[in-house]
Amino acid sequence: MDYLQDLFEFLKIDTTSAKGKGEEGAKFIVDYMKNHGIEAELIRHKARNPYIYGEINVGAKKTLLIYNHYDVQPVEPLDKWNTDPFTPTIKEGKIFARGVGDDKGTLMARLQAIIELMKEGKLHVNIKFLYEGEEEIGSPNMEEFLKDYSEKLKADYVLWEGSGKAPNNAPQIVLGVKGLLYVELRKRTSKDLHSMYAPIAQNPAWDLVYLLRSLRTEDGKVLVPHFYDKVKWLSEEEKKYLNIDKKYLEDAIGQNIKDMDAMIKLVSNPTCNIDGIYAGYTGEGSKTVISSYSFVKIDFRLVPDQDPDEILRYLEEYISPYNVELIVHGKVRPYRTSINSEIARALIVSAKNVYGQDPIVLPNSPGTGPMEMIARYLKLNQIADGIGVDYYGSNIHSFNENIYVDDYYKAMSWMKEFLRVI
Amino acid sequence: MDYLQDLFEFLKIDTTSAKGKGEEGAKFIVDYMKNHGIEAELIRHKARNPYIYGEINVGAKKTLLIYNHYDVQPVEPLDKWNTDPFTPTIKEGKIFARGVGDDKGTLMARLQAIIELMKEGKLHVNIKFLYEGEEEIGSPNMEEFLKDYSEKLKADYVLWEGSGKAPNNAPQIVLGVKGLLYVELRKRTSKDLHSMYAPIAQNPAWDLVYLLRSLRTEDGKVLVPHFYDKVKWLSEEEKKYLNIDKKYLEDAIGQNIKDMDAMIKLVSNPTCNIDGIYAGYTGEGSKTVISSYSFVKIDFRLVPDQDPDEILRYLEEYISPYNVELIVHGKVRPYRTSINSEIARALIVSAKNVYGQDPIVLPNSPGTGPMEMIARYLKLNQIADGIGVDYYGSNIHSFNENIYVDDYYKAMSWMKEFLRVI
Repeated sequence: MDYLQDLFEFLKIDTTSAKGKGEEGAKFIVDYMKNHGIEAELIRHKARNPYIYGEINVGAKKTLLIYNHYDVQPVEPLDKWNTDPFTPTIKEGKIFARGVGDDKGTLMARLQAIIELMKEGKLHVNIKFLYEGEEEIGSPNMEEFLKDYSEKLKADYVLWEGSGKAPNNAPQIVLGVKGLLYVELRKRTSKDLHSMYAPIAQNPAWDLVYLLRSLRTEDGKVLVPHFYDKVKWLSEEEKKYLNIDKKYLEDAIGQNIKDMDAMIKLVSNPTCNIDGIYAGYTGEGSKTVISSYSFVKIDFRLVPDQDPDEILRYLEEYISPYNVELIVHGKVRPYRTSINSEIARALIVSAKNVYGQDPIVLPNSPGTGPMEMIARYLKLNQIADGIGVDYYGSNIHSFNENIYVDDYYKAMSWMKEFLRVI
Repeated sequence: MDYLQDLFEFLKIDTTSAKGKGEEGAKFIVDYMKNHGIEAELIRHKARNPYIYGEINVGAKKTLLIYNHYDVQPVEPLDKWNTDPFTPTIKEGKIFARGVGDDKGTLMARLQAIIELMKEGKLHVNIKFLYEGEEEIGSPNMEEFLKDYSEKLKADYVLWEGSGKAPNNAPQIVLGVKGLLYVELRKRTSKDLHSMYAPIAQNPAWDLVYLLRSLRTEDGKVLVPHFYDKVKWLSEEEKKYLNIDKKYLEDAIGQNIKDMDAMIKLVSNPTCNIDGIYAGYTGEGSKTVISSYSFVKIDFRLVPDQDPDEILRYLEEYISPYNVELIVHGKVRPYRTSINSEIARALIVSAKNVYGQDPIVLPNSPGTGPMEMIARYLKLNQIADGIGVDYYGSNIHSFNENIYVDDYYKAMSWMKEFLRVI
């Protein structure tokens, strides 16, 4: 087995789901698995691109479900690439190709590690594989699929699509996601008015300012009653693995950060964020007007165990005196696997053994994802991410996507060590 | 002299200054004045349309300067007119034509009244006429003109372009204007961010909310220190003539008003108004983003004797902790003629005599205009408006512009009575 050669064959296949591609890549992988002795099949469900399901039953008590996706983001703008995105190229120790960081590289590194372990007879946990071909278009059919295939996918742990190196180059493990409540608040009056009526007329722009001011303090505390009731604040154990210098965060956001605990805040704080606001005249120069219409788009990032439906009810009650129209644009529940769970401990220990340093462990990502949905349908509570080939400069979703060759082999080693200790 | 016939001839001439028209109308009026024994001339200064200057010197001690404009607004959308805008038409007691309400009707009614008084030998005040042809495009050359012709225009009082009937059908007198300070506040960071960074990143939209909240209370009080220092609150005498039911204001703004003193507030309160606000994503649905850019456009309407330059300094100092970029889009000084001045008393008394009811007297308009500039260049302090032919349904600047025939004759009578009592 030539690891990189096989990876490169996979990377050459265009699997841009946004352009309806994927089938060829799915067949390549299912054949690759079969050729190496893994039971595998294409499942044609409601998605346009088939799911790949595979299984290795070594008669163990525990089963690990590995999730990856074989589809990729569109490559445009093509002229920004230094190499052809579907012609994998090694330069200065890095592999450049679309999907090498997200998620074909990780898929292949994990798969090759498992094939090796099988051959060596050292696999002592049952493996299930689920490879999707619609992740990059938002997994629109995943919930239906989970509902219909929950029995087949039954497992004790789920290893998510991959998390490579943190900005400080330590291996990174992610044990959950934040949830989300996205609302739009709108305020209307009967008509636009000349601003000379300001002494007596209601102004929907001012109305929003006072409403917004009542939602959040200047230092970010959300003022909606009961908002924090169900927040599970981080334990000392969880904080221990968040020891990353704030300079990496400053680089990421392009702003100075005063707070020394920035990383802990980033992970653990639920937020109320203005995504967009509009009222009145927004063109060049001036117009003296009282707009008849204003709106604001707000996302609340939620942490375990906040419930977006509950938060929505608290919000509606709290802002009812303002008489605004409220539209819900999105609701996602947060999810977190315990840092003391078997999968978390196995990921942490194996990372230390392979990389010789403590991993960064995010109790949850600062972002949002469908982990809670998976936990719910598969009736399990151990979902974690780690063992990825990417790093902070991988340019995922962008041009010149790349990984380090060394990181590819390191990820293989981590996979094998993880499967040894779990 | 056939009053309406002559008015109609004038209304037939297209004097849309925005379209470069006006010359023909100016010549018509200057000829009309000369034909009726008034010294008159076209003055070609920096404006594209000539000024008309006229004079009647009866050897009196006092001189009244009458200002009107002969240009009109564009008539578009033409298909909304029920009659041709340049074919004056009488229907149901009303004259329909572009400019009949603003300002050709008032110009002509006043002029015809003065010609009558001249013929009757009853004119006991010197008259100067100034007719402009660029009012509807913002009088861009007026200040230069005032500067160069201040000697020629020297007078004791100025009668402004015309104010007809208040919404309650009482004659309306206006003794001043509000001033204005129009600013835009902008806040930037280095780049747009995924909203997952909300726990640690600065959000320029939130920055504006807190800044705005610090500018004004929910009931409209401006919180900039020293903002109210120079406000001249209305006297009891001034309030007496503001006795207009709030229902007319409710009709005008399409909102319910709780405050019984709404008319007094409208006239006397300086304000801080949001004209426009923008940040982030304002399209359909949702996008989770921390915008790198936000701005708000604000107008402060100022009342006598607030000074926009002073208020700007107070504002800059007050908001300096917020570190926003401030752009000034406009500054106009407020102006108010005393209700006890000769011109105000003469307008009030003559209105009562002609209409048989108390006039509505606005110590200043809720809106803004260049009155202070005129007072400054002509070194006088008695500028007032009244004696107009329009009413609240005149559709000024809009389609189907109209006045009541009766109101035209009433305005002529008011002009004669005003000149008698002043």
